[in-house]
Amino acid sequence: MSGDQKQYKNPKPTVDILIELDGRPGELVFIERANEPRGFALPGGFVDEYEWVADAAVREAKEETGLDVELIELFHVYSDPSRDKRMHTVSTVFIGRAKGTPVGSDDAARAVVCAPDKLGKPLVFDHATIVADYAAYKARGVRPPPKR
Amino acid sequence: MSGDQKQYKNPKPTVDILIELDGRPGELVFIERANEPRGFALPGGFVDEYEWVADAAVREAKEETGLDVELIELFHVYSDPSRDKRMHTVSTVFIGRAKGTPVGSDDAARAVVCAPDKLGKPLVFDHATIVADYAAYKARGVRPPPKR
Repeated sequence: MSGDQKQYKNPKPTVDILIELDGRPGELVFIERANEPRGFALPGGFVDEYEWVADAAVREAKEETGLDVELIELFHVYSDPSRDKRMHTVSTVFIGRAKGTPVGSDDAARAVVCAPDKLGKPLVFDHATIVADYAAYKARGVRPPPKR
Repeated sequence: MSGDQKQYKNPKPTVDILIELDGRPGELVFIERANEPRGFALPGGFVDEYEWVADAAVREAKEETGLDVELIELFHVYSDPSRDKRMHTVSTVFIGRAKGTPVGSDDAARAVVCAPDKLGKPLVFDHATIVADYAAYKARGVRPPPKR
């Protein structure tokens, strides 16, 4: 670290994963969070120092759902300073694919697989925006705007 | 910040910008760095806390080149722990467009506009990878693999 960086505070890198399951077209894996903020969310978490963001996504998916996720593509980056009330996070969001049945563990009280519009519960953080952007991307091939 | 996050160290979010100039097709804006590591690079820098990554990209482009950049799209995220010898950084890379002539300032000793394969100098950090990925994207529409 160079001396002139020490005085700055920086946002924290996180990951979130849009997991598509084999045999469940149009559905995604959601978790019910075991910790604050409570509610439903995409699987995800913090990137460790010296960890690639892609590896963090695979690790968090495994920890929270038990699934071995193959990352298909990097979808987008979400950095609204108000996206997480606890601190400023910058989330790299991946689209991944997995087989099997997710089982909630670690930060996840349980995991559910359903179509985004059938969840029937609000999503925490800015995950409703991420899921809406994903739905638009799948339907029309349109990626989110640069500032998201 | 929740108590259970305090013990972790995290990588630092950065941005880099692939700037296309009106009237200069096939060329990009590069800077010669005024600080270590010395050499040529894409314009970019650290994301401040409470700053959107897209705003950081526009700010850094302005500071280092004087250009008012319009971001066109979010290209990819680069997080190789060895990409910057000083510390682990996670860079969100944007493609942007600008008019005019870049003038190096701040971290940039000077700015140059040229085709990536005509620069004639090695790029610092992992910027040669970013530029090669960009060239492949422009030529064939192929985005980089998720882990980059």
